[in-house]
Amino acid sequence: MPSFVVDIVGSVAAFLTTICWLPQTVRIIKTKETSAISLASQAIFASGVSLWLAYGFMISSWPIIAANFITLLLLIMIIFLKLKHG
Amino acid sequence: MPSFVVDIVGSVAAFLTTICWLPQTVRIIKTKETSAISLASQAIFASGVSLWLAYGFMISSWPIIAANFITLLLLIMIIFLKLKHG
Repeated sequence: MPSFVVDIVGSVAAFLTTICWLPQTVRIIKTKETSAISLASQAIFASGVSLWLAYGFMISSWPIIAANFITLLLLIMIIFLKLKHG
Repeated sequence: MPSFVVDIVGSVAAFLTTICWLPQTVRIIKTKETSAISLASQAIFASGVSLWLAYGFMISSWPIIAANFITLLLLIMIIFLKLKHG
């Protein structure tokens, strides 16, 4: 497997698992509906993403830092909306 | 920073971002309620996790393979329940 293929697969993976929370955030803002969303899942996920962010700083990996920083911003918004709308 | 600290932070991060989807799955099974969940977000997330899984195989990283395999199983169940309950 050529290494640029591996890099592309990893980059597309990171891109998708980062921007995927945008439709969820937009949906909640539009519908104000959050009852089906598990606060436990979102809280554990946000804790994990925070640790990935710390890990990114520890190994000085800018792709890990950037991807997890954006994910964390979207998650904080989802958790805020969940706490607001219940 | 000692390397075992970095490894522990990465391992806990991977553990949390894997098991976090269990409470969401259990919640949907219990309540049969999925309306607030964005199918677009779940579909894009599952595509990204599938690519992370492929990436894990390409670089022969068992932690990446295992974490993303378990995440993908939970996501497939969430997407199935979302399609079923609407």
